[in-house]
Amino acid sequence: MQLTQALHRSIQTRGRHIATIYGARERNWQQVGDRVARTAAALHALGLQRGDRVAVLAHNSDNYLELFFSTAWAGLVLVPLNTRWAVPENVYALRDSGARALVVDDAFAEQAVALTAACPVPNLVHIGEAATPAGMHAYETLIATSEPAEDRCASDDDLYAIFYTGGTTGVAKGVMLSHRNFVFSSINWIGSLHLDEDTRYMHVAGFFHLAGASPALAVSFAGGSHVCVPKFEPVTAFQAIQMHKVNYCLLVPTMVNAMINHPDIRAYDLSSVRYCEYGSSSMPDAVLMQAARELPSWEFIQGYGMTECTTLATTLPWKYHFDGPHGASKRLSAGRAAYGIDVKIVDEAGVELPRGVPGEIAVRGAQTMLGYWNKPDATAAAIRNGWLHTGDGAYMDDEGFVYIVDRVKDMIISGAENIYSREVENAVHQHPGVRECAVIGIPSDKWGETVHAVVVLRPGVDLTEAELIAHCRSLIAGYKCPRSVEFREALPLSGAGKIMKNVLREPHWQGRSKAVN
Amino acid sequence: MQLTQALHRSIQTRGRHIATIYGARERNWQQVGDRVARTAAALHALGLQRGDRVAVLAHNSDNYLELFFSTAWAGLVLVPLNTRWAVPENVYALRDSGARALVVDDAFAEQAVALTAACPVPNLVHIGEAATPAGMHAYETLIATSEPAEDRCASDDDLYAIFYTGGTTGVAKGVMLSHRNFVFSSINWIGSLHLDEDTRYMHVAGFFHLAGASPALAVSFAGGSHVCVPKFEPVTAFQAIQMHKVNYCLLVPTMVNAMINHPDIRAYDLSSVRYCEYGSSSMPDAVLMQAARELPSWEFIQGYGMTECTTLATTLPWKYHFDGPHGASKRLSAGRAAYGIDVKIVDEAGVELPRGVPGEIAVRGAQTMLGYWNKPDATAAAIRNGWLHTGDGAYMDDEGFVYIVDRVKDMIISGAENIYSREVENAVHQHPGVRECAVIGIPSDKWGETVHAVVVLRPGVDLTEAELIAHCRSLIAGYKCPRSVEFREALPLSGAGKIMKNVLREPHWQGRSKAVN
Repeated sequence: MQLTQALHRSIQTRGRHIATIYGARERNWQQVGDRVARTAAALHALGLQRGDRVAVLAHNSDNYLELFFSTAWAGLVLVPLNTRWAVPENVYALRDSGARALVVDDAFAEQAVALTAACPVPNLVHIGEAATPAGMHAYETLIATSEPAEDRCASDDDLYAIFYTGGTTGVAKGVMLSHRNFVFSSINWIGSLHLDEDTRYMHVAGFFHLAGASPALAVSFAGGSHVCVPKFEPVTAFQAIQMHKVNYCLLVPTMVNAMINHPDIRAYDLSSVRYCEYGSSSMPDAVLMQAARELPSWEFIQGYGMTECTTLATTLPWKYHFDGPHGASKRLSAGRAAYGIDVKIVDEAGVELPRGVPGEIAVRGAQTMLGYWNKPDATAAAIRNGWLHTGDGAYMDDEGFVYIVDRVKDMIISGAENIYSREVENAVHQHPGVRECAVIGIPSDKWGETVHAVVVLRPGVDLTEAELIAHCRSLIAGYKCPRSVEFREALPLSGAGKIMKNVLREPHWQGRSKAVN
Repeated sequence: MQLTQALHRSIQTRGRHIATIYGARERNWQQVGDRVARTAAALHALGLQRGDRVAVLAHNSDNYLELFFSTAWAGLVLVPLNTRWAVPENVYALRDSGARALVVDDAFAEQAVALTAACPVPNLVHIGEAATPAGMHAYETLIATSEPAEDRCASDDDLYAIFYTGGTTGVAKGVMLSHRNFVFSSINWIGSLHLDEDTRYMHVAGFFHLAGASPALAVSFAGGSHVCVPKFEPVTAFQAIQMHKVNYCLLVPTMVNAMINHPDIRAYDLSSVRYCEYGSSSMPDAVLMQAARELPSWEFIQGYGMTECTTLATTLPWKYHFDGPHGASKRLSAGRAAYGIDVKIVDEAGVELPRGVPGEIAVRGAQTMLGYWNKPDATAAAIRNGWLHTGDGAYMDDEGFVYIVDRVKDMIISGAENIYSREVENAVHQHPGVRECAVIGIPSDKWGETVHAVVVLRPGVDLTEAELIAHCRSLIAGYKCPRSVEFREALPLSGAGKIMKNVLREPHWQGRSKAVN
């Protein structure tokens, strides 16, 4: 099992078909294969040796996608850096991974100077469209001046990439994923998510995150086509879908929300899309229902997972979003175990809990990471008896559907009652004037915590705190309703598009004891 | 990666849905899971220990399907015996594998006596419906008197089963397949062949063969339902499809041919079937086209593979059987590399040949067997540099489609011309009076070999040798046409439903030098 198998097969079976689209530029699989083999030779010529780490800091592009294969082809390890991170954070990742090369595009050429001032890296490569800055190797020159290298076929457990987790999950850790992890995950995606050679996949989630990287690899295994969009923005996405007849995409809920609330959405033909995977965080029910009305050709499939299990742990097919022959709608769940993945809900001792009782989600399978880079203790804490402990809280119903009650650390305990912020957010979202919202616990001397809502209203909407709380009271129990509401222009988002609740919580909790993640 | 993962997931997500149907008997996944865990305990109580081999000689049934999981659950190795083999052949398999238990149904209870007389086996288990013969353990009693055992979770490379290859391929060899082989193959089947939880799969190919065993496992990974048919017979298949609303089946070409030529085919509603996988041997074009007309709801998907790579090496989706937007029909090919499988055409030195040049098919991937049981030399000859050498001859076109020109050893060399029997068979089959045919080479002092056709005519058809040869001359070059034609009532079939050309060749070649396989 080696990741370059995807490329070999796509060259053989889809050589003259489109592999990548970036702006007006198209490359077929034959061309991508040739460029990858030449890049691998160039990386060797730079002195990189088997197992060396190659960091990449760039927006999505066709060139970036090639690096997913050229590092593997050369026997190297890919380290995608987070485009949202500040310099000190990426310096940490560079230093921690011991990267011997750094690849950047135009947007990050300047940051590269600051990064390498703090953490020298022997090789800098520029994959942008503008002139190559001094001191960097030009990607196209490397390709043009190298002969194709032989694939240094990796084997199963060889390290393929290190992905740094961050954003909402605390101190950064490098998740080590193997060739086997991604091969198995990719074949699993094909079956679970209906990919095939006719898939034209729009990548708006950053490649540095598994929500971008997993489909980049899985679609390659299927022999499909990649439409690379550098940064998410509703109109850019509309244009890419219409122009390239995109039939598949992955969007995080905040992206779906931004698209369906954009005034120009109906100016574009978005009916080529057949499937939209959503995930990374929960989708408010009101948003999903509005999306279903606005985009009738789209089937939404929920995927729940995490970097540590190469994304997919559970999936919820579209049919389960509604009442049907299978029974009542399951759309408040995150679905059931993906193929080939064991999922169970456990207590703190790791013992499986009865159905309906909330606990921690644990998963097992061929997609489980090798471990955390340089962090054996963290690895031992996360993987126990072969089970990956996710830190996410959920219960499972009698049919195996997993209901994520909340990030365990995201649950609000008010007056000894457990309140799941997701449930409150769903209530807030049902108000037609609400565009986005996040619910957090803030300190209260009387209750321990009280429920606080941070809300972005739709343009032109006038809504008071009291009105919104009254709206919630009509839907959920009084103790779950927000005690306070804060109106903002926007919510802080992580690189993966998740709402960063830690940023919202931080000012309230300064000097207090609740862990701020 | 362990095979019982399929069972754990199906219990969790499909517990109350149908797992198996056998005659009028239905069991759900919860019941199957409970029975499997109890059987595992019973096998331990019989003294079987991790790694011990358990042989099974039985027709397809729900009980047999359970054994695919209970042996794994108990940490044992399954050895399915060929139901078509004679006593000495199965004695060989029993002895070679060192089986410590033999499981039989009603049809093979008598043969068990003969087998164990020649090769004593300490434990005999009866999974039939009739009274349990003396000296055997009754399966239902074992289940009823045992408490569920814990799953002795296997790991990736642990041996799961030994399948004996035979029939058309010469001396029997035990193919060792691991848990990883089958987990990967099953997830691959789900994506390549469109299985899901709504799949209702009719098993008519024997479970002792990969054409039966692979779907038995893959459908379980998908959480679908199994309709077990003990032996193929057209009317039995019609009834099972109609009664159980079967939507998927696997048929070898001789079965398709028998069904579409059966006078009662239109008396049954077969329109529930959406997909029919075919393979194991080539399908004559005339048969496929007749099947498409007769069964318009069915999409035929070709799968080419072999036991040594856990079945699937290439697949040909239905759309490629016809001219279309993708170009001209590819239906004379066996399709392209399955997901996650490397396929190439090599010369005798293992060097890849240019497109269009016939050579030997070599495959690589996570599905490649561990090796041949007790036959390290045969293993070393088959797997070289990680590539499995299949012994099948083919060329590959520019789009990666593999055209199997013939089993290498099945090619006819007449007057120094290479003649592919498949091409001749396709010509013979296009005569409307022909029901089945096999073309072989027979010895000729003048030409080395000459082309000989063995033909089964449709009922009531009157056709002479000269007329059939004239028909062929209108379609293919004269040197490829049969020089002689033999009319028979039926063709000899292997356990997997393949036409046994070795049986047809044998009387012609007695005392001659051509290898009889």
